Amino acid sequence: MSSRPTAEFPTPTKPNARARAASLEDVAALAGVSPGTVSRALSRPEMISEATRQRVLEAADRIGYVPNGAARAMAMRRTLTVGAVIPRFGTSSFPTMVQALETTLAERGYTLLLAAPDNKGSQTTDMVRTLLARGVDALALLGSRHPQEVFALLKTQGTPFVQLWTQDDALGPCVGFDESQAAALVVDHLADFGHREIGFIGGYTRNNERAEARLAGLMRAVAKRGLTLREDATVETEYGLQQGFDAMERIRLGGSPVSAVVCGNDYLAAGALAALDQAGVPVPQRLSVASFNDNEFAPFMHPPLTTVHLPIQEMGEQAGRHLLAVLQNQAPEAAAPLPVHLVIRRSTGPRG
Amino acid sequence: MSSRPTAEFPTPTKPNARARAASLEDVAALAGVSPGTVSRALSRPEMISEATRQRVLEAADRIGYVPNGAARAMAMRRTLTVGAVIPRFGTSSFPTMVQALETTLAERGYTLLLAAPDNKGSQTTDMVRTLLARGVDALALLGSRHPQEVFALLKTQGTPFVQLWTQDDALGPCVGFDESQAAALVVDHLADFGHREIGFIGGYTRNNERAEARLAGLMRAVAKRGLTLREDATVETEYGLQQGFDAMERIRLGGSPVSAVVCGNDYLAAGALAALDQAGVPVPQRLSVASFNDNEFAPFMHPPLTTVHLPIQEMGEQAGRHLLAVLQNQAPEAAAPLPVHLVIRRSTGPRG
Repeated sequence: MSSRPTAEFPTPTKPNARARAASLEDVAALAGVSPGTVSRALSRPEMISEATRQRVLEAADRIGYVPNGAARAMAMRRTLTVGAVIPRFGTSSFPTMVQALETTLAERGYTLLLAAPDNKGSQTTDMVRTLLARGVDALALLGSRHPQEVFALLKTQGTPFVQLWTQDDALGPCVGFDESQAAALVVDHLADFGHREIGFIGGYTRNNERAEARLAGLMRAVAKRGLTLREDATVETEYGLQQGFDAMERIRLGGSPVSAVVCGNDYLAAGALAALDQAGVPVPQRLSVASFNDNEFAPFMHPPLTTVHLPIQEMGEQAGRHLLAVLQNQAPEAAAPLPVHLVIRRSTGPRG
Repeated sequence: MSSRPTAEFPTPTKPNARARAASLEDVAALAGVSPGTVSRALSRPEMISEATRQRVLEAADRIGYVPNGAARAMAMRRTLTVGAVIPRFGTSSFPTMVQALETTLAERGYTLLLAAPDNKGSQTTDMVRTLLARGVDALALLGSRHPQEVFALLKTQGTPFVQLWTQDDALGPCVGFDESQAAALVVDHLADFGHREIGFIGGYTRNNERAEARLAGLMRAVAKRGLTLREDATVETEYGLQQGFDAMERIRLGGSPVSAVVCGNDYLAAGALAALDQAGVPVPQRLSVASFNDNEFAPFMHPPLTTVHLPIQEMGEQAGRHLLAVLQNQAPEAAAPLPVHLVIRRSTGPRG
């Protein structure tokens, strides 16, 4: 992966080989409808019958007509695009959430623009600026803790937005779930099994409000049940399988008397279970392991993983519906926290 | 998830609260540069110094200036967006590939537009049409086997494109790897361990050229080494963990005399390993399991999974570099197949 393009951007006059471009009127003539119907078929399909829409699309295909998106967007003062600012895809549940968002928006003809950090480590402000410059009609932001200027920009532009995976609605509408409730589910379960001293492998809390909220929720739940979250069995790390593996090795070799370890997400837990498996530590007989997310692989771990099911897909869907409602001048759904529940599998058991 | 927005699209006149919009000239005055420099800072950053770019961006932020993307795009005849047509995100390596594509493009100021099927099961042609209507400068397509009209549309529009995960360059440039080589790596490894009769759990080959190429590659490799791919231990299914679990149960209970099973990807293999684990079948002593992809979880399976490392991230990067080169009127890299290699872990061993 060595060679890279180094030259400057193409000149603005780069021609698009569009020799004798078909017009909207050509499509109308071929489909036997009015130009207005063609326009509606392409931008407001709900207003016409599916049969007419199909006829128009077939005519457009036959003569190779594609509407000029930029010109159309200017005329309509909207682009039918929604931007999403998502920091990373690897070993996270964000792809699932983004796909749910994308699918919900696509149902109404919106296309999702994706912004993620480039290798230069650009920040949220840059990503939001880029998406606004692309003329997005609305924006989905992961979390609420962004630089002031992000919200200032959105306000100046009058761009509707929604925050995902947060309940902090001080700066705008959000979809999320109750972290305290999620933590209480897993802690109550362990307490009921007689566990008293608990370890924790979590994501770095610095600059990650989701990791921070998870740890805070856990500490509240632990205090409420009179358990101890042992410092000598608490590790903050990157979210990832290898990181979970390494963290569990540290806890195991540190000799802390914990009988259960909670992991910040299923990727950490999968790594932690592998470490215990390879060290011959029986789970849950010697150590219980529980987690958050209920990713698709959780039932297939060794042993199957007890984890709090988080509404990953539902957050994407609810965010999409919220933005669509706002874009259609409708009242959005009330932003109640989405439900969570504990999925009890075989990685947790009575204190040995 | 019951309530859905049902009303029609917003009217074109929906106002964007843009009371007294700051102009490019305002930014230039505040930053103490010419309007041309502001324009370059925003669209061709390579042409000016980083310090100047920063000064312009800060000035733009202070007065809330965001360039009108649609107007700018019309003036420049490009939108600085690249579309990607990707069928699904769940239990696949596509998120990793898409993120690599997105990151590579973002380095040069391009934003990725994502199109995936909506719930109505829209096809590639619809997705491509949508992205072209958004004015994308270029397109990334997963695979090469798309309806004729997709390539006709791209040709009519003169839109550059690249196909990912294929070596079939009959219709245009592509980035991929050699499926035959990948299959030979895993089959040679099993043959060297003395395995003669092999099973296969693969993705549905109908309408999935990648699954089809994988099966074809495997059959060639098996024939070459004189092994047998047993029909009573061959299952086609959806790619997924539960599907891998169920398929392995079928093979196990069917009593086929295979001593090794190859899985079409790591998700299927993870499910298959869980089935064997829960049934108490020792791996690799009684059955060897091998796979393709080398997803991030492969080293953490029970036991760690032997799998062919595929260039998932590299395909995304190479596709991004290819499109950037074309968009910058440069010669793209030669499209040599990307390298693959076998990662031997503990799920394979000598025939028992």
